[in-house]
Amino acid sequence: MTEKLKRSHMCGTLTGGNVDSTVTLMGWVQKRRDLGGLIFVDLRDRTGIMQIVFDKDISEEAFKRAEELGSEYVIAIRGKVYVRQSINPNIPTGEIEVFAECLEILNKSETPPIYIKDDDDVSENLRLKYRYLDLRKPSMQKNLMIRHETTNAVRSFLAEEGFIEMETPVLSKTTPEGARDYLVPSRVNPGKFYALPQSPQLFKQLLMVSGMDRYFQIVKCFRDEDLRADRQPEFTQIDCEMSFVDVEDVIEVNERLLKKVFKDVLNIDLQLPLQQITYKEAMERFGSDKPDLRFGFELFDVSAAVKDSQFKVFSSTVEKGGSVRGINASGYGDSFSRKDITSLEEFAKTYGAKGLAWIKVTEEGVTSPIAKFLSEEELNEILKIGKAKKGDLLLFVADENNVVFDSLGHLRVEIAKRLEILNKDEYKALWVTEFPLLEYDQEENRYFAKHHPFTSPMDQDIPLLDTNPELVRAKAYDVVINGYEIGGGSIRIHSSQLQEKVFEVLGFSKEEAWDKFGFLLDAFKYGTPPHGGIALGLDRLVMLLVKEDNIRQVIAFPKTQNATCPLTNAPSEADAEQLEELSIDIKVE
Amino acid sequence: MTEKLKRSHMCGTLTGGNVDSTVTLMGWVQKRRDLGGLIFVDLRDRTGIMQIVFDKDISEEAFKRAEELGSEYVIAIRGKVYVRQSINPNIPTGEIEVFAECLEILNKSETPPIYIKDDDDVSENLRLKYRYLDLRKPSMQKNLMIRHETTNAVRSFLAEEGFIEMETPVLSKTTPEGARDYLVPSRVNPGKFYALPQSPQLFKQLLMVSGMDRYFQIVKCFRDEDLRADRQPEFTQIDCEMSFVDVEDVIEVNERLLKKVFKDVLNIDLQLPLQQITYKEAMERFGSDKPDLRFGFELFDVSAAVKDSQFKVFSSTVEKGGSVRGINASGYGDSFSRKDITSLEEFAKTYGAKGLAWIKVTEEGVTSPIAKFLSEEELNEILKIGKAKKGDLLLFVADENNVVFDSLGHLRVEIAKRLEILNKDEYKALWVTEFPLLEYDQEENRYFAKHHPFTSPMDQDIPLLDTNPELVRAKAYDVVINGYEIGGGSIRIHSSQLQEKVFEVLGFSKEEAWDKFGFLLDAFKYGTPPHGGIALGLDRLVMLLVKEDNIRQVIAFPKTQNATCPLTNAPSEADAEQLEELSIDIKVE
Repeated sequence: MTEKLKRSHMCGTLTGGNVDSTVTLMGWVQKRRDLGGLIFVDLRDRTGIMQIVFDKDISEEAFKRAEELGSEYVIAIRGKVYVRQSINPNIPTGEIEVFAECLEILNKSETPPIYIKDDDDVSENLRLKYRYLDLRKPSMQKNLMIRHETTNAVRSFLAEEGFIEMETPVLSKTTPEGARDYLVPSRVNPGKFYALPQSPQLFKQLLMVSGMDRYFQIVKCFRDEDLRADRQPEFTQIDCEMSFVDVEDVIEVNERLLKKVFKDVLNIDLQLPLQQITYKEAMERFGSDKPDLRFGFELFDVSAAVKDSQFKVFSSTVEKGGSVRGINASGYGDSFSRKDITSLEEFAKTYGAKGLAWIKVTEEGVTSPIAKFLSEEELNEILKIGKAKKGDLLLFVADENNVVFDSLGHLRVEIAKRLEILNKDEYKALWVTEFPLLEYDQEENRYFAKHHPFTSPMDQDIPLLDTNPELVRAKAYDVVINGYEIGGGSIRIHSSQLQEKVFEVLGFSKEEAWDKFGFLLDAFKYGTPPHGGIALGLDRLVMLLVKEDNIRQVIAFPKTQNATCPLTNAPSEADAEQLEELSIDIKVE
Repeated sequence: MTEKLKRSHMCGTLTGGNVDSTVTLMGWVQKRRDLGGLIFVDLRDRTGIMQIVFDKDISEEAFKRAEELGSEYVIAIRGKVYVRQSINPNIPTGEIEVFAECLEILNKSETPPIYIKDDDDVSENLRLKYRYLDLRKPSMQKNLMIRHETTNAVRSFLAEEGFIEMETPVLSKTTPEGARDYLVPSRVNPGKFYALPQSPQLFKQLLMVSGMDRYFQIVKCFRDEDLRADRQPEFTQIDCEMSFVDVEDVIEVNERLLKKVFKDVLNIDLQLPLQQITYKEAMERFGSDKPDLRFGFELFDVSAAVKDSQFKVFSSTVEKGGSVRGINASGYGDSFSRKDITSLEEFAKTYGAKGLAWIKVTEEGVTSPIAKFLSEEELNEILKIGKAKKGDLLLFVADENNVVFDSLGHLRVEIAKRLEILNKDEYKALWVTEFPLLEYDQEENRYFAKHHPFTSPMDQDIPLLDTNPELVRAKAYDVVINGYEIGGGSIRIHSSQLQEKVFEVLGFSKEEAWDKFGFLLDAFKYGTPPHGGIALGLDRLVMLLVKEDNIRQVIAFPKTQNATCPLTNAPSEADAEQLEELSIDIKVE
């Protein structure tokens, strides 16, 4: 090595103000061009790109070394900043360039297997295998920096509000009533297992019992479930819990938290208070408990209008206790051909709909395969309820309510996607409240907690636990942005009698309840304050902030859909000795 | 319930300035006294204690309810703040009290199994079983709050310095060359296992390869080792990595980080730069690579003075290549009786010393069982080297160097402990540098990396890799405070040739090296910048800041020495169905 250079600036931070000063930069060769006896190098670091010029007349030694430079070589240069002769308006540093007096090659590079630019279009598997190269892309660097800014905003806000960040165990206990756990065999306690936490739920409640008053943690959680675009085996939660609060207190703090994040990270002003709609209203208007409010196409109910219709598909559905509902792709009738509508019908069927009835209102009047089965009065009433006007397309599903909501809810979003009217720069946040406490599981023939078994019923619904458990509403709330559930929480039960009652409704015997949750029931005996909290999904939140569709774009080292890491080849085989120490055997057929 | 009260203040935040205002407080009943027709309650929350007075003349209803109150009841009260008639100078809020107009009992409490006060002296097992009560103690609440303040200070400093917090996987890959891993069986990939990270070492290096430039993370790490007072199966690291740096750059940033922490948390000014001593010097002066600098008793070497002595215990040790060294408990000769010295000898023997020779310098001259074996010249030379004066006690070990260092190093600390001269309010921080790169393992008959296999040798020692590997010094550094290793790090190898060379010295074939670390060697091919970093142990750092002796005092939910959690009973048995899904069997004899 020649003389040891020390970095003075980052590439992207130089401006016209640095002209005439001598700087030392370090980074990667993005591109080299040899032109008119000069060598031009685009030097890249985390902050941006700076054009470096090598000129024999300034340093023959540096020039000769520069002739060796290839893409992704790591170099250090020292030189003087000049105003460029030909200004490049496409990059922030495009007005200046550095004439190198000195060049040190810190490391060479073979030709990388993926290009270091945002529009590189290789398979995701290759991107994950060479993640260290993929993360050199400016967009990926920006995503991770915004993730950092987001957690910064969250932490400073919560600390300001009196929340204390506290760590809870990763080597924890199996979660009854949860999703599938990841297990960790214990060497010291043969035959026993830790579980990785699906959430710090019980620990944060215990911290409230311990008088910590306001807790938060940005924390990894784990679920061994099959993966989707917005699911990973490990994910990160912004986890909060507060004492002496009710629903509105938790909502109030958390919407100010979101306001702070949007302001700090995107300079966007969220208007508070956020809209609140009940679960019931969300289902009836949007067919979803995580409605996307960036567009209309709300559901409407025509059951009353068709309950006596000759069109048996409609009337018999209503008779059987189901409903007939529709959505109006208002103004977009012309955008959907018959073929398109058939494709929408196929889509609706994947959510259980048996068919998709439709009415188009055109210049020439109503076009519809079902019009002939409806009386004029019925048709007019339907058009009135659906607020139909010329240019509209109305789509209907007749079925039991959950199928109607699920299929129309998804169809509503699908139509917006096909119309490309979803604007990623627009953020519509809302609270969904008053979730049902319980869900009935036909297969297991018992109730399950919709949120989790520690969720408090609404005060006025407690008597219904004995008579109509399915009607009991919970003090539970979700915050939803653009159709994504960003977080959810609840006020917890803090009385051991009520908790035991809920366990009973869930079908646990007193022994089972104590066996599974004994330490919580025990804790309730010694002065548990009223408390509640929330968990926000950091990955999803950041995904929305950076306008991506996949959480793998905001996680440095994500797993594939198969829960593997193509970079490190995790998971991998274990030594016989390791298994021996852990007292386990592999049993693969 | 009666009317719903809303908290207006926290107990400990009220001051004389609140006199005459009406406040609503919530918390736990610390103590109730009935006195002169009034009921006095000490109400406790996270911030402190407030005296509440119930007076029939103000509210008969509240007074009657107050008669029910027991310890640890959770209550809400509304009332007016008055100046106290008898001021309690022992608590910050002792000048005022609140006369309750309204009392709501939010939850009752049975008599708790442990007392909620700092000097409660029950077994640690009981404390962990009822951790939610143990954490109500003011000292435990303070410990966790200081932990939070510490991470706040760390995060704000590092963000300011351009470090980006990035998350690395918890479901990761087995660490070759590390401690014992915790394994997680994969359901989707039967027979394969994730490993919980012992540190994010490889990922943070890959982030440097990806051009992230400055990374940090406050992150859980895992080691399946047998536990000690300052070890837990999961522990928290402040993990940093920087590009384009050498040893001094990492040291410089990190000592400013520590300065910021000590200033923000304890308002103590650390003087920078911190002292730096080499590993060699640390061993020779303190017999330890984590010296406690709060006291003297430094080691001195008398080998030269006794090499020809008639006292064979000394001379033959020197002849065989060992050494004879001593420490001087200067001024404390009178504090150690012969019995005490025998006990010190027993202590030294646990570190491998065969015996402990000693010389006391008293008013009457030298007392020593070995004096008679030494010539007057030898004795005088020893006293001179040991800077012995009246009132001193000199203690000697003769053995091979590592035994001498280990036993005298520990003895030095043990003496300070017995003398009770260790001041927890005093912080002596230093860097230990130039660690050996390798350690020879006699059992396995090969070299092991002292830090880890990615540590860079010092430039001038690289040639020694071929000739005298044991003499190669590393670009590795530890930061030590009061005898605790608070953190350690190194500059990493960034050239694939040098990395392969080091793997070779460690005894890996090229195939083994690629099998174990192929993705890192691969990454080195595509432009890896020079980089290095550090990991600081958050648990130990906070333990020192709060002046505790055990990291369990600064962890909300620690494990026992048996790696169990008495609160949740983790680890616990798994269902047959779970094991089936994970393709594993338990094999317990």
